Formats: sequence, C-alpha cells, structure tokens
Amino acid sequence: MLEVYHAGPASNSLKVLLCLYEKELDFVSHPINIQVFEQHEAWFLKINPDGQVPVLVHDGTVITESTVINEYLDQVFPEIPLRPAAPFAAARMRQFTKYVDEYFRPALSYIGWQRMIHTVTDKLGPEEFAARLARIPREEKREKWRISAKQGFTEEQMAAWRRTLQEGVGKMEAALQRGPWLAGDDYSLADIGLFSMAANMPHRYSDFMNGADTPRVMDWHARVMARPAVKAALATRSPVKMPA
Amino acid sequence: MLEVYHAGPASNSLKVLLCLYEKELDFVSHPINIQVFEQHEAWFLKINPDGQVPVLVHDGTVITESTVINEYLDQVFPEIPLRPAAPFAAARMRQFTKYVDEYFRPALSYIGWQRMIHTVTDKLGPEEFAARLARIPREEKREKWRISAKQGFTEEQMAAWRRTLQEGVGKMEAALQRGPWLAGDDYSLADIGLFSMAANMPHRYSDFMNGADTPRVMDWHARVMARPAVKAALATRSPVKMPA
Repeated sequence: MLEVYHAGPASNSLKVLLCLYEKELDFVSHPINIQVFEQHEAWFLKINPDGQVPVLVHDGTVITESTVINEYLDQVFPEIPLRPAAPFAAARMRQFTKYVDEYFRPALSYIGWQRMIHTVTDKLGPEEFAARLARIPREEKREKWRISAKQGFTEEQMAAWRRTLQEGVGKMEAALQRGPWLAGDDYSLADIGLFSMAANMPHRYSDFMNGADTPRVMDWHARVMARPAVKAALATRSPVKMPA
Repeated sequence: MLEVYHAGPASNSLKVLLCLYEKELDFVSHPINIQVFEQHEAWFLKINPDGQVPVLVHDGTVITESTVINEYLDQVFPEIPLRPAAPFAAARMRQFTKYVDEYFRPALSYIGWQRMIHTVTDKLGPEEFAARLARIPREEKREKWRISAKQGFTEEQMAAWRRTLQEGVGKMEAALQRGPWLAGDDYSLADIGLFSMAANMPHRYSDFMNGADTPRVMDWHARVMARPAVKAALATRSPVKMPA
C-alpha cells in the first residue's frame, strides 16, 4: 500500500502527486495543513523527524524528500517510466531535478513565504506563532521563518531570488531547443520537478515567462497542463483551511 | 574516452575520483587550480558555463555536477555497482547524497573558505582578486566570496555551519547502526559522497567526530580509508600550486 502525506497540489507535494498520477498508482492521500505547521506536530515528527512534507509510506516503509521519492517510485514501479533509459538523458534529468532542489525551489519558496507570512501570523497570533516556530526541527528553517515574520527579507534578497527564477526559466527555454521535454525526447521527472514549481508562474511571473520571451517554455507549460495525470494531480483536495 | 576536470582529491572533485577508481575506469586527468579561479577562465567556461569543477567528458559529451556524474558513471559502467539494487537502499543512498549537496558540503565549504580566503587574496592582490571575482558566473557564489573576503562570515554563521556538520555526523552514526555502510549492506555513492567531504574531519573536527562520541563513524572512516580505490584517489596529483 502506498500512502502520501502532502500539502496539496503545490511545490514539492505536487511533485510527488504528479509522479503517482502519471504512473497510474493508487494511494491513500493524507493532506497536511502546513499553514498551521501541522508537519511539526509530534505525531507527524514520528513519521518524519525532519518535519517536512511530502512523505511516502510504502508498505510501512517511510521515504522522505520529494526528489528521492520520485526516483524510488520509478525504480519500484517501472511500467510507466519517468527516468530516461539513455544515460545522458538521465543525467540531464538529474541536473534539472537537482537545480530545482538547490536553486529554483528555494527562490520561489522565499518569495512566496514573504507574500503569505502575514496571513499565517495574523491567524495564529504572535504567541502561538512563536510556539509553532520553536517546534521546527531544522535550525535553518526556524531562522528563515523567524526573519521573514519579523523584518521580512530585504529588497536585495528578493531581487536576487527573482533573478534566480528568471535564470531557471532561461535554462528551460534553452533545454527545450533540444527536444520537446526538458531531458530530451520523453516526459520525465525533470518536467515533473519544474512544473511542480512553475505551474502558476505564467500568471505570477509573466514579466519574464511569456509567449514573447520564452515561447518554448509557454508551449511546454500548455502541453504539461493538458496531460490527464497533471489535471488529476492538480485536482487533489487541498489541506483543510484553518477556521477563520 | 573519459576525461575529468577536477581540483584534486578533495570535496566534489574527490567524489568523482573515488567513483572512477572504485569502478576501475581509465580516465584522462585535467587538474584545475581553483585557488586562482582557473575554473572561471574563458576556455573552461566553454566546457562548463557554470564555472565549476568537477566535469566529466565522456566521448566528447559533457556531464556536470558531481552527484549527477556519479549516477551517470554507475549507469554507463554497471560492472562494479555503486548504487544499491534494492529500491529502499537506493533511496537511502540518495537521501545522503542530497543531504551532502544541500547541507553538509555548503557548511564545510563556507568554513573552509573562511580559513583560506586570505591565502588566496594575499597571493592575488586586491585588484586581481576583484577581477577574478567578477568573472564568477553564478551570482550567489560571487556574493559569497565577496562577503567572505571583505568582512568574513559572522561568528553566528560559523557556529550554525559547525552545528550542521555535527548534525550530519550524527546522521551517519545513526545510519551505521543499521549496517556496515551508510545505505545498508553495500559500499555505495552515499559512502563516497560523505567520505569526499569527511576525509579530514577526524583531524579538523575531532571535538565531535571521535572514537568516544561517534565510534561507528570512526570505524567507517578507517574502513573507507583502507580501500585500494580510496588510496589511489587520494594520491591523485593536485593542481599545480601558484608560484609564490
């Protein structure tokens, strides 16, 4: 049995949902409300001591880290492959999934958090917010949220993260000159990794992701959106919103 | 033909060298002197526009990123496997290689750079150093080196990175309770990834990596050191030092 703890169809959680639907795998869905830091509650830390979603539980065995989960799913369920068989294409795929993890997603995440932090702090109130921050297992994350809630990130930081996103979209445009998908001929975990981050980018970042500047990326985005598995993943029930 | 551009037997370059020797593969060695930022020179940027070592060139095809290179080598030359065949062990392996890339190596690299930055700046002189910094392709790296050369990282940052390293060694100790190697029964890219960073750590970080606190890690370190492939990789000729 496959079980997935996720925060709804966005970011790293969407990455795993896209893989599961593409492979036509049945799974039990456990939505986690990250807006109230449910992933840091004691019951969840027993599943993943790092306090992060998504988490895959396969016949009782816990696998963490979305990129690792997707490689695992492709190895265990190879019927619908999402890793290119050709070694060089597989390397291209991993260059993209690694780039997403180390540069693209952090940039997107910092900018997104800056935008929504006050929704979260307003709902929880300062004391409850501080109490929940204190439970975050990873020190770097604790600091990140503390700083963003207190003084916000600087204009300089925000601009640098935007440049990282623009650079990433440029890498995608360049890759799509070589073939229809990011790693070459086949839809792969590279497309899944980038789309899980970029699903809303034509809306939010239309100044550098648009038909004139990045036509191949826009065409790629439309082709990914049209996939039945992607539609199904995007329709995943989101975690219950907090009562007002 | 396999060619490797590397900075000698340390860090990410050592990671690829360890893999090549373990697999008993012949290769042409191209040492790059990173102390004078040779990896940012125009001729090298034609090979890797990111201006980073190591780089693998396989029959003319360029592969970058040490973690991706090692996965590639294991796929193309599977005779001596370094990725566990069992999916769960392979996932554990990737959790470690990812952790090294995202947390462990950056922490080690920042601390190491703080220690040796003045050797580099003193040799080059301020103008030449500034000129070389300006050529670094990645903005984040440029900023990192500029800050460390100018004011140095803060005590707080240094302490946080040390805690990351200690946490990483704790993860290793815990993993080695489950089996002789980090991913389980077999020596894998996880051991190679960690050892490439931790080779000198019993010397430099003996306060938290020692026989009393982390006996399994120390035993693991000795067993890795005893491997013929590791001895051979560590004997790789280092890049020519700058003339004094």
